[in-house]
Amino acid sequence: MQVDTQYIEIESNGDAEVLNLSPEIERCVCASPVRDGIVTIFVIGSTAGITTTEFEPGLAQHDLAALFERIAPQHDVYQHEETWKDDNGHSHVRASLLGPGITVPLVDGHLTLGTWQQIILIDFDTRPRNRKIVLQFMGQ
Amino acid sequence: MQVDTQYIEIESNGDAEVLNLSPEIERCVCASPVRDGIVTIFVIGSTAGITTTEFEPGLAQHDLAALFERIAPQHDVYQHEETWKDDNGHSHVRASLLGPGITVPLVDGHLTLGTWQQIILIDFDTRPRNRKIVLQFMGQ
Amino acid sequence: MQVDTQYIEIESNGDAEVLNLSPEIERCVCASPVRDGIVTIFVIGSTAGITTTEFEPGLAQHDLAALFERIAPQHDVYQHEETWKDDNGHSHVRASLLGPGITVPLVDGHLTLGTWQQIILIDFDTRPRNRKIVLQFMGQ
Repeated sequence: MQVDTQYIEIESNGDAEVLNLSPEIERCVCASPVRDGIVTIFVIGSTAGITTTEFEPGLAQHDLAALFERIAPQHDVYQHEETWKDDNGHSHVRASLLGPGITVPLVDGHLTLGTWQQIILIDFDTRPRNRKIVLQFMGQ
Repeated sequence: MQVDTQYIEIESNGDAEVLNLSPEIERCVCASPVRDGIVTIFVIGSTAGITTTEFEPGLAQHDLAALFERIAPQHDVYQHEETWKDDNGHSHVRASLLGPGITVPLVDGHLTLGTWQQIILIDFDTRPRNRKIVLQFMGQ
Repeated sequence: MQVDTQYIEIESNGDAEVLNLSPEIERCVCASPVRDGIVTIFVIGSTAGITTTEFEPGLAQHDLAALFERIAPQHDVYQHEETWKDDNGHSHVRASLLGPGITVPLVDGHLTLGTWQQIILIDFDTRPRNRKIVLQFMGQ
């Protein structure tokens, strides 16, 4: 049984951009000594979140952003912005709701994802960001 | 320390049907050699999600579906449906928001759930599905 | 590789109160023999949830509560309340959506959180509660 820590860094444009992490995560899976266990995928920071979706342009470039705009509109009033005189109150509440990470089973060297199920990061911040994601593999 | 992988398969009707996984998960817990650790419960596919609730008819048959209908209405416009000429754009965004899995501590052979806290799958797809759920036990 | 179980108990006022768990969790991290691995932080009960945020008064005392009031208004009609003649239908659906726990990587004795990223519990119930949170450390 062992612990294997890897990191991914990606550039994001923010504004609810949806980034497909699966190709990079697959590379980390191949490089990891862990074949059976779990991997926890966790984004550092409080204005982005991680989940899964079918990564196709309709969902990735439109529908997911529209969902979060309905839930937490960008131009609503947020006390967070009064505190810091900034503009990303909606980014924070969206990220808290989605959550900073997911844990995925790893069986026989493969993540147990569906064929049309990719792991994505949604960056809710209002400016380009460099994002660091931790991959913590646990298993054998 | 060991890894124990089990699977649950269930039939769902879709349309935000809420299925109580706890009885089947309890059987897996009893069958597992892991007594202390965690279990990651993960649904394969991108139109269903997993969480916990009090599994009683009001929440399971009405309130949870109503929540997701408010957040992501079935008959809104989704670009996903333009891409594939299908009808489940709302299913996808709801599933991404809820998330595909949860991780629950296992202490002395029991999941650390409340008395009125069951593990559920919500199937957001627009047709009946056979769902496969991975249970990844880690511990001793 | 080992499993280390710890518990936190806190008093909450409910009504979407946001509680900063990070100071107490940091004490648990320091007390744990696990230095590299993961910790699953899980609240027992079905009317509270756990996530991360920047814990500052604007978000913690206003914006997060406003988000959940938009998603699941307190004074909407919930069948759960018909079942039990109580008043916390909104508490349940909010908690299911947010989710009961998160799993955070632990690297070299530190949680991989951002500087402005604290672990919070949101208590959605309609009365003061004593909350018990399980911390399941796994690793070496």
